[in-house]
Amino acid sequence: MSVAALPDRAALEAVATCAGAVALAHFRAVAPERKPDASLVTAADRAVEALLDRELAARWPDVGLLGEEGAARAGRGGLRFVVDPIDGTSAFVAGLPTWCVSIGLLDGARPVAGVVHLPVAGEHYTAVGGRAWWNGRPLPRLEDAGTAGDPFLVADSSVHLGLRVDWPGKIRSLGSAAYHAVLVARGAAQAALLGRVRVWDVAAAAALLDAVGGLLAWLDDGAPVDLEALARGGRPRDLVVAGTPATIGALRAVVRPR
Amino acid sequence: MSVAALPDRAALEAVATCAGAVALAHFRAVAPERKPDASLVTAADRAVEALLDRELAARWPDVGLLGEEGAARAGRGGLRFVVDPIDGTSAFVAGLPTWCVSIGLLDGARPVAGVVHLPVAGEHYTAVGGRAWWNGRPLPRLEDAGTAGDPFLVADSSVHLGLRVDWPGKIRSLGSAAYHAVLVARGAAQAALLGRVRVWDVAAAAALLDAVGGLLAWLDDGAPVDLEALARGGRPRDLVVAGTPATIGALRAVVRPR
Repeated sequence: MSVAALPDRAALEAVATCAGAVALAHFRAVAPERKPDASLVTAADRAVEALLDRELAARWPDVGLLGEEGAARAGRGGLRFVVDPIDGTSAFVAGLPTWCVSIGLLDGARPVAGVVHLPVAGEHYTAVGGRAWWNGRPLPRLEDAGTAGDPFLVADSSVHLGLRVDWPGKIRSLGSAAYHAVLVARGAAQAALLGRVRVWDVAAAAALLDAVGGLLAWLDDGAPVDLEALARGGRPRDLVVAGTPATIGALRAVVRPR
Repeated sequence: MSVAALPDRAALEAVATCAGAVALAHFRAVAPERKPDASLVTAADRAVEALLDRELAARWPDVGLLGEEGAARAGRGGLRFVVDPIDGTSAFVAGLPTWCVSIGLLDGARPVAGVVHLPVAGEHYTAVGGRAWWNGRPLPRLEDAGTAGDPFLVADSSVHLGLRVDWPGKIRSLGSAAYHAVLVARGAAQAALLGRVRVWDVAAAAALLDAVGGLLAWLDDGAPVDLEALARGGRPRDLVVAGTPATIGALRAVVRPR
């Protein structure tokens, strides 16, 4: 697949919508189990990942696949889908509307396309080949976007256990790292503080951020996150921040260990 | 209106659904303004409150009304609707799915009915005469409810500015005090830490909590919140906690000034 043959937006969004419909069929009617790392998983996560495996392979048979629940398929060339069938499983189990389906497409370490879909809210955040959309509306670059409401930070629900964050405004914690990161990409949140990030949490959001002049960086040293290394490397070494270079700097300046 | 003549659940939910539809017509297409207290307000808040004023008066003409955006109508006897047309206006303006319509019914200080409706998520949390429902499903008393997923605290988005909260689990901040409080009533959240509470934020949720063995209490001394005094008294003296007596005690024990 050359860059000219990147998946088109409508096809990506259709697969995400289909995955969301499968998840919704389980929503508020599913019993969770614990994975070895103590995080939650449900029959919904597995059913959605199975659907993504089938539908992505049917449409883009040459592209590889890496999924949170174990899907792994080598592709031809460097392209690989990296999917989280339900990002925010804990929010899903709790009946919150903020979980999402995340489908990223990496070309080596480079995020070249992605969609984050919130089935309950009916939202699609999509990027393809350096452009990004929210529900079909093109997203402006972050430096060009105005802020209508209260600026806020989004943060992982466990940051209070290890960090003190002297952020001067509101801090929300909505239940999904992928959602948090795309809220930054559309300029609703100024920055995001993401905990225990795995590559499937952020692969799609990274394509959105890339398209609007944002990025993902390590909290500790501010270095950009290498998604290929994250995919290889198991557990991340530290928390990840999402924002523009300016808001990442502002956030890193007000975070310290407790 | 005697207790026997409390509004029935379907009628209350119908008014809330209608209000939610008016709000949805403005959602993601409205410009915010600042109120004198610097909080946000939109044309949607005013349109929804006007609708609530009309529809509640048409159905229950003897019942008074107090609304966040200025609606005030004396009733006959001690019954009064206390409404927040959009609780979580800041979340509404930001395009988040967690804002809600809140309609409480107070008999003096006692919350006797209420509905909290999340239009984007399609949820109704309703209480009438000591019973409570979530989307039509009866809610058990909190001491009888099991916890399937990760227990979590919900907290106002500004608590980090004044408090250190050594809560051992997840802390979420979803954008609406009324939603936070009803998440406690349905057993999804263990407790809520609510900031700058006005009576319209919690009148409906108080009826839900009351029905399931929960309550609202002041953070500082643990005393139950008197809704009639809150309605008279302007700004609250302190933060409010929602939970069972046990979870309120556990939360008060881990909160301290920064």
